[in-house]
Amino acid sequence: MTTVPTQLDLGTCYPRVQQFYATQMRLLDERDITGYASTFTEDAEFAHTPGRPPARTRSGIVEDLTDFHRRFADDPMQRRHWVNMIDLKPADGGGLVSTAYCLVVKVRPGKEPVFVSCVMHDVLVDVEGQLLTRSRHITYD
Amino acid sequence: MTTVPTQLDLGTCYPRVQQFYATQMRLLDERDITGYASTFTEDAEFAHTPGRPPARTRSGIVEDLTDFHRRFADDPMQRRHWVNMIDLKPADGGGLVSTAYCLVVKVRPGKEPVFVSCVMHDVLVDVEGQLLTRSRHITYD
Amino acid sequence: MTTVPTQLDLGTCYPRVQQFYATQMRLLDERDITGYASTFTEDAEFAHTPGRPPARTRSGIVEDLTDFHRRFADDPMQRRHWVNMIDLKPADGGGLVSTAYCLVVKVRPGKEPVFVSCVMHDVLVDVEGQLLTRSRHITYD
Repeated sequence: MTTVPTQLDLGTCYPRVQQFYATQMRLLDERDITGYASTFTEDAEFAHTPGRPPARTRSGIVEDLTDFHRRFADDPMQRRHWVNMIDLKPADGGGLVSTAYCLVVKVRPGKEPVFVSCVMHDVLVDVEGQLLTRSRHITYD
Repeated sequence: MTTVPTQLDLGTCYPRVQQFYATQMRLLDERDITGYASTFTEDAEFAHTPGRPPARTRSGIVEDLTDFHRRFADDPMQRRHWVNMIDLKPADGGGLVSTAYCLVVKVRPGKEPVFVSCVMHDVLVDVEGQLLTRSRHITYD
Repeated sequence: MTTVPTQLDLGTCYPRVQQFYATQMRLLDERDITGYASTFTEDAEFAHTPGRPPARTRSGIVEDLTDFHRRFADDPMQRRHWVNMIDLKPADGGGLVSTAYCLVVKVRPGKEPVFVSCVMHDVLVDVEGQLLTRSRHITYD
């Protein structure tokens, strides 16, 4: 039987999650798909696009994103994932439920940036001292 | 006579304020006006729109926002309040003076997001272990 | 010989850097160029625009920004520098390597905000208890 702490040590958790998102999203924005997948647990689930089945496991995420990114192959677009307004709660059985706003900024040469607003619903866990995403579901505004 | 600390314990205050804004603004963005008002002190003052008198007390905030939100009744708009660049200082008599940038993202189906840039001038206080907004004044760019 | 810690105390560093960027960028956004320059070390280097040589030293930064801001003299524009997705690493010989996303929001009366997306590459150091920028290089998307 697991117990859930009623209150998080925000002083420790919060900056750690911010640092984690900063490095995780930069990997994605630099199109380092393998690096990005390695910030998920081995058994992770990642649902990023409505109507598309969630990717499962690290190798499944690599495969899914490689396929998904094909649409960007000829697109000189720099994406920037901004994550903020992070709401942390203790997760059942340990880990963190993290709900955060995400604004995707898409920049193309000589054009005004384009924005996509969404909400990330994450479960984050500590695996041998490393924070990892166990599950991520994105909802779009 | 109250004494004001010259330096804040940022490691404790800063993540706490970020977590507070995340939950507070999500209540507003989900149009839970009563929930949002409950993140203010009983005697709070909230001035959100130039030329409109500030709302006072929790019930006054509920009344004011219920009235204000009527203009959105038929508008399929999702608002997202992004708060960042938070500058914390100790407040006279305890509490925190928090000055922060706020970017309101307004998303309507099939349209590009619309943005409003403003600055929040808050006084935050701890009431029985809960962080609450005692006063909020918004200035618009 | 200096030693570099392999792991940062994020609970201390992270909020401190966020508070630092909040005050530093507000000075810039309020066009307090001298105040902004004082958040750099005496021997700092600041490269903010491609094709323009970096400014060096505090007085060099004041001179460079005074010159640079002339183009805004008749422009009723309010800039807001949003810094987020901060990635902190220990710097060689002490201090912090901070890599962060920066979104510059430019607001003009009656117009939609205009955005510029860039990445800040900073080295931050503690000088007698004050965090200061030793070097800043900006890359644009």
